[in-house]
Amino acid sequence: MLYVVGLGLGDEKDITLRGLEAVRKCDKVYLEAYTSLLALGLGPDATTTLEKIYGRPVVVADRELVEQGAEGILEEARTLNVAFLVVGDPFGATTHSDLLVRAKTLGIDVEVVHNASIMNAVGACGLQLYRFGEAISIPFFTDTWRPDSFYDKIEANRKIGLHTLCLLDIRVKEQSVEALCRGRKEYEPPRYMSINTAIEQLLEVEETRAGKVYSEETLCVGLARLGTSTQKIVAGSMKELLDVDFGPPLHSVVIAGTTHVMEEEFLSFYKPS
Amino acid sequence: MLYVVGLGLGDEKDITLRGLEAVRKCDKVYLEAYTSLLALGLGPDATTTLEKIYGRPVVVADRELVEQGAEGILEEARTLNVAFLVVGDPFGATTHSDLLVRAKTLGIDVEVVHNASIMNAVGACGLQLYRFGEAISIPFFTDTWRPDSFYDKIEANRKIGLHTLCLLDIRVKEQSVEALCRGRKEYEPPRYMSINTAIEQLLEVEETRAGKVYSEETLCVGLARLGTSTQKIVAGSMKELLDVDFGPPLHSVVIAGTTHVMEEEFLSFYKPS
Repeated sequence: MLYVVGLGLGDEKDITLRGLEAVRKCDKVYLEAYTSLLALGLGPDATTTLEKIYGRPVVVADRELVEQGAEGILEEARTLNVAFLVVGDPFGATTHSDLLVRAKTLGIDVEVVHNASIMNAVGACGLQLYRFGEAISIPFFTDTWRPDSFYDKIEANRKIGLHTLCLLDIRVKEQSVEALCRGRKEYEPPRYMSINTAIEQLLEVEETRAGKVYSEETLCVGLARLGTSTQKIVAGSMKELLDVDFGPPLHSVVIAGTTHVMEEEFLSFYKPS
Repeated sequence: MLYVVGLGLGDEKDITLRGLEAVRKCDKVYLEAYTSLLALGLGPDATTTLEKIYGRPVVVADRELVEQGAEGILEEARTLNVAFLVVGDPFGATTHSDLLVRAKTLGIDVEVVHNASIMNAVGACGLQLYRFGEAISIPFFTDTWRPDSFYDKIEANRKIGLHTLCLLDIRVKEQSVEALCRGRKEYEPPRYMSINTAIEQLLEVEETRAGKVYSEETLCVGLARLGTSTQKIVAGSMKELLDVDFGPPLHSVVIAGTTHVMEEEFLSFYKPS
């Protein structure tokens, strides 16, 4: 049996009783680490903290292991109880859906334990969840790669008054071009996009595309470390948010669409100080 | 301090460790009962089950108490630790946002404990969460009241290829017109819209509006009791889903927009039998 267990957004205490019960009966426990260690705010001792609560050894499954070695995990799940822990909800990321499809294709029993994810916890910003359109991802721009297809999605959402959740780039265990060329397993230091960088890139794209989809004056909400005890939420124009120090990652941004009275009332609690 | 604690979607075991810790240190514990008792699949002994886990008496706060008597709860939260428990996530329903705004306006400290809600757990159907547009609510039609403004929202979503989550009507503690006229506190039996009724109403509206926004052949996913042990998910055309017996509530429907290969592969596990 494969248990795919959502850990929620905060720290080790955000697992559900159902999730904890599942983990405690598992023979093997994998922790998806692509975003986990940081998102859980647990630092380098993450597995130790988790192992204490679970009473089980925890194996950190990095991106390579998940993308290339998931066969091994699935093979084990044929005969053992295996837990695969993910930050947020199991359906928050495409990678996990892929793992589920592969498990089901192989005829392996799967049980999913849901939890909060950015996709619903973003409601904490005061904008109503049901009024969000398609969510977009903003990648780090490089000198030669400045993809802007998210601009069209923001436009489509804003045309019908919907809010847009922007998920910001995370670069963990990325190989440098040089390392790739030399065939070395060397990784660049992790990078997490800040709200400030995201807004700079958004404004750059508006300047290039010039579709008047949004501007410096457009109302946005910056959310840092959502669901943790150090969560910081600020609502203001893009220009205002550029100057706000949101602190450590993870960050996300919401570009507001048409706002209702109650949404505005709620947002007023998050004005820049 | 007011703790607003999400209970998730399944039963008493879906509370998080953080939520449980908060509840256990509270002087008063209210359970929002508008959808709770049923959604949690706990039946009439719900409070007893919860009280055993929490080690605290649980007061069921029905809709009237929340909408009219929230002042009392907020007043208590000035001097006591008060927990307000809601099914799903605290930001799933407008009522709870309203409570939060009122608490903040009164200067009462609020801590929110997130959990899974239909808004993110719907990813279990195999359609990618980030590709959902505005969510709609489908109300029970009556002889004289057949509102169809949701049709325009479905159209807007489908035009840009997005999926639409349809939340189905729940009628709990509704007063009959007769009782209202006589000023009596008499309630009609609870009603929960089924997937079948929702699709009948959707098709009726398409027939009336004739905008070719969707048809009997449109791919939908029916989700019953999502996140519980008896969860049932079936993907098929509207016509196919009309004949599926999804069992007891709560039900919801997703009208698929443009689907990607991985989404289709995932949906294939949920074909009607």
